[in-house]
Amino acid sequence: MKRFQVYMENPVSYRDILDAASRIEGIAVRTPLIENLYLNDFTEGRVFLKLENLQHVGAFKFRGAYNRLSALDTTARQAGVVAWSSGNHAQGVAAAAKMLGIEATIIMPEDAPYMKIENTRAFGAHVHLYNRYTESREEIGTHIAAEKGAVIVPPFDDPYIIAGQGTIGLEIMADLTVLGIKPDAILVPCSGGGLCAGVTIAVKETSPNTQIYTLEPAAYNDTEQSLAAGHRIKLTPDSTSICDALMAPSPGELTFPIMHAKGVSGISVTDDEVKAAIRFAYQALKIIIEPGGATGLAAILAKKCTTQNKNTVLVISGGNIDPHQFRECIR
Amino acid sequence: MKRFQVYMENPVSYRDILDAASRIEGIAVRTPLIENLYLNDFTEGRVFLKLENLQHVGAFKFRGAYNRLSALDTTARQAGVVAWSSGNHAQGVAAAAKMLGIEATIIMPEDAPYMKIENTRAFGAHVHLYNRYTESREEIGTHIAAEKGAVIVPPFDDPYIIAGQGTIGLEIMADLTVLGIKPDAILVPCSGGGLCAGVTIAVKETSPNTQIYTLEPAAYNDTEQSLAAGHRIKLTPDSTSICDALMAPSPGELTFPIMHAKGVSGISVTDDEVKAAIRFAYQALKIIIEPGGATGLAAILAKKCTTQNKNTVLVISGGNIDPHQFRECIR
Repeated sequence: MKRFQVYMENPVSYRDILDAASRIEGIAVRTPLIENLYLNDFTEGRVFLKLENLQHVGAFKFRGAYNRLSALDTTARQAGVVAWSSGNHAQGVAAAAKMLGIEATIIMPEDAPYMKIENTRAFGAHVHLYNRYTESREEIGTHIAAEKGAVIVPPFDDPYIIAGQGTIGLEIMADLTVLGIKPDAILVPCSGGGLCAGVTIAVKETSPNTQIYTLEPAAYNDTEQSLAAGHRIKLTPDSTSICDALMAPSPGELTFPIMHAKGVSGISVTDDEVKAAIRFAYQALKIIIEPGGATGLAAILAKKCTTQNKNTVLVISGGNIDPHQFRECIR
Repeated sequence: MKRFQVYMENPVSYRDILDAASRIEGIAVRTPLIENLYLNDFTEGRVFLKLENLQHVGAFKFRGAYNRLSALDTTARQAGVVAWSSGNHAQGVAAAAKMLGIEATIIMPEDAPYMKIENTRAFGAHVHLYNRYTESREEIGTHIAAEKGAVIVPPFDDPYIIAGQGTIGLEIMADLTVLGIKPDAILVPCSGGGLCAGVTIAVKETSPNTQIYTLEPAAYNDTEQSLAAGHRIKLTPDSTSICDALMAPSPGELTFPIMHAKGVSGISVTDDEVKAAIRFAYQALKIIIEPGGATGLAAILAKKCTTQNKNTVLVISGGNIDPHQFRECIR
């Protein structure tokens, strides 16, 4: 009973993130942390970008997925895995499953970016499309998993997933330590909160004074509202967002207490601010960022976060954006 | 006399490149060397991309320019500098001049990419536009330099410029050494040959068996032809290329002997192959590459270079491409 309680309070430890780092070493991309002249000038500070758009499958999700799947035993591996995702978790699970020889079934919304659906299929996964507005992906996924006896790989509410994403925090701290820098703030795109919870645990262990922010689209700022209220709030949004990867209606059961306990705050951005960030990344940074991944840069450019004389880190979480949308952004 | 002869045979030494590395340390971006799952799968080898599109001004040219300008004495700095360039050298000189408080005048073709002209102006340089087909940029530049008593900063035929670009070779070797890898081949985009000559000196010092290739657009393959003939050939191209940065009609007086003595070979690619590479970089790598910078990737994707079971390095030399052209490439 005591052990269970400790687990619920502390489902992921710093040690779990170090273990995840060992599992993904030499397999995941050790993504670069870069600075840019224009961005430093504009912000009157130093801004470091952690380029997870250069990760396998073009998004950080590979880390958590590989950490989860590589920890499965032989029996579980033979039964296969099932996951649901708007796209990046889908690709992450598909790529990790292919590397480990595991069969994967992925439930994706039929309006997910074409690139994400195609890439998931290209890794050999079975893709099951559903209607985001009339069907429940959890129900479909649970049904398929029960039929196959397969393991469900949740997108964020899982200790292995959180620990895998947390390796990003370890790498940020390692690279900044070489430069003799402690980060004042880290801006993390947030859907269910797996990435943010993992990064928070990893960073706060060695730099307790660093402020962590979640970044969300204004229409889906459930985490910002939940953190302010001190409890989980579930939204029923009446508008949509171009940030297809960040449209969770509430933070996770495991992820929220972690973020809340560590003093994480929320920032939200508009679609127009996100488009401006994608355009800036094209012109000045020479990288492709998808809408959800550009939310931190959007906040910086819109002056929603103090950067003057500070060291700020942006987690650029992914780069999977369909050409028609990208072309529109850089017009 | 003997010293002069030694200089002409050996205008740039490995030591000069180490000195350049000290000068630019902490000022130029230490650009990442990345791998990609799709590219390794496709090539059946390991391909490493040196991302100089993430360098200041979006191109490697900053390195040579800063190395040249920071070596000027006080009198020369006060007189200012003059340079001519289709765009990336222009921006490199303008950015380095701004950092060092030097006045810069840049002669640019009026049909250079808009982004490159605007960025050069944004760094505070005086931009003088000329007609690429009816005027001589050398004459205009020499005239302005004589009037002002300013120092001419050549785009490639200068020992400091070559040594500055050579720092890319040092960084590639350092990063590969950490991985325990010797490169079998390095593919370097080539206009006048400053980048290739510098990289060749840096790499061959510690890895003499690495094969270096120059990459050129098919209509401007003067270096490929010169290296095959054993002497400098000047082309009078009757067609154009989308590779605006690689349209020199002949390799340099200083750069050619270096490349030739070290056994460099030439590869050329078509505009369509370059466009396919830009599209691939968008979809799979999540980075923006300009046409000239994408020539190495174009050669790999078009199977013009053996990659199976080999370690191949691509120098991604720049990312300054106008939106209308980029939009066309990813359509």
